Amino acid sequence: MIPKDDRGFALGDGLFETVLAEAGALRRLDDHLDRMTAGCAVLGLPAPDRAAAERLMIQALGEAGLAGARAAVRLTWTAGGGGRGLDRPQTLQPRMVATAAPAPKPAGPARLMVSAVRRNERSPTSRLKTLAYLDNVLARRAARAAGADEALMLDTGGRVACAAAANLFWLRDGRLFTPALDCGVLAGLARARVIAAARGRGLGVEEVAEGAEILAAAQAVFLTNSLIGVRPVAAIGDRTYEESRLVDVFANVLAES
Amino acid sequence: MIPKDDRGFALGDGLFETVLAEAGALRRLDDHLDRMTAGCAVLGLPAPDRAAAERLMIQALGEAGLAGARAAVRLTWTAGGGGRGLDRPQTLQPRMVATAAPAPKPAGPARLMVSAVRRNERSPTSRLKTLAYLDNVLARRAARAAGADEALMLDTGGRVACAAAANLFWLRDGRLFTPALDCGVLAGLARARVIAAARGRGLGVEEVAEGAEILAAAQAVFLTNSLIGVRPVAAIGDRTYEESRLVDVFANVLAES
Repeated sequence: MIPKDDRGFALGDGLFETVLAEAGALRRLDDHLDRMTAGCAVLGLPAPDRAAAERLMIQALGEAGLAGARAAVRLTWTAGGGGRGLDRPQTLQPRMVATAAPAPKPAGPARLMVSAVRRNERSPTSRLKTLAYLDNVLARRAARAAGADEALMLDTGGRVACAAAANLFWLRDGRLFTPALDCGVLAGLARARVIAAARGRGLGVEEVAEGAEILAAAQAVFLTNSLIGVRPVAAIGDRTYEESRLVDVFANVLAES
Repeated sequence: MIPKDDRGFALGDGLFETVLAEAGALRRLDDHLDRMTAGCAVLGLPAPDRAAAERLMIQALGEAGLAGARAAVRLTWTAGGGGRGLDRPQTLQPRMVATAAPAPKPAGPARLMVSAVRRNERSPTSRLKTLAYLDNVLARRAARAAGADEALMLDTGGRVACAAAANLFWLRDGRLFTPALDCGVLAGLARARVIAAARGRGLGVEEVAEGAEILAAAQAVFLTNSLIGVRPVAAIGDRTYEESRLVDVFANVLAES
């Protein structure tokens, strides 16, 4: 249970990571904790103790009866209690929380809808997994209401950024593209692994700042995140995409690495 | 205490209002609940029961030993527990929480610093008091670190929006100005009362979309919110402002209404 005065609850003052657990093992936990530590530096929070975080996450997995399952283990790190309104207290007492839930793989390719809610590339929080994730909730909600699976979000300048809970890649003429981080994009761990895998195979990857019209010319589009790995995109609005052998290659690379 | 799976805690999925209590009375509670109800419609949440909200707030005031004091009573309304990641559950079970804290009047005029964190006018949440308030926390934090009292926030287009926890007005040549709501501005209750009071006195008020340079030409600047009423601004960065009799007039009007 969380006290009512927790600043994560009251103001979204904190960060989270969602780690894939398979057969009781937390996949790429170090990378997740590295990212959270980097986010803490941006927000002015102390970094969580890594051993304590791992213990709490393993405990949450067990308490949820998911130690043998494919599960999402979420680590939440808040600025803790106290302070006056927006102002944090003189001495922070951060709070660490972990929860676990089943993480079934998504069923087939995703249909995307362009969201009216924009990413704020003029805030550092657009590049972090913060507790202030309401814009993503609203973007996803509108996509679902329109019969899509996920939202495609643009930044306030109209440039393609990401999905509500995934990074985005597209293929065109044998080249791979993904939005640059300064378009209000989270530095996804799966995103980094796809980029590394592509470059390791001699396939260039360009990080770009382009309007949504660029996607009309793409031959294939896919999403990435730590829980789903790679998920093909079947459609963005009315534009549909064919299955792509190359997307399958990346999916396999991520599943096996 | 709040369950760990509350969507307000996990994602900032909810709203709040901070109501001024004086001698046990909740000032302008109906206006606050009207605004929260309007925000619920935007977020797709049911509105809170008004009688239940009032009961809980009065209870929080008493439990904090502040029934006779000048206090801030905060009402929080979240999307409750459940759902999968960003997706809300089929049936929402919203959560209502109230807390109370002393609300001393601010000491003298405020010194403002222009924030690097921008308001996202391309999201409806920029016009609501949501639990996803981290950008405001960061803006305030940077202002404090620079020796100022409060942050002046621009929208992503560089137009003057508001302070981290207040609306903004300025006077020039006997005319009153405030940023338009579509610059990512909360529809402040004190803001509305200042506009009404000015118009009631035959003083025009213009809601404008202007860059920060407009403030260099202002003769006086002031902040408004429900807790502080009117607070004069002494400086924005290096630009200082004189005391203004007209600002005092508005402060008195708000204090007495």
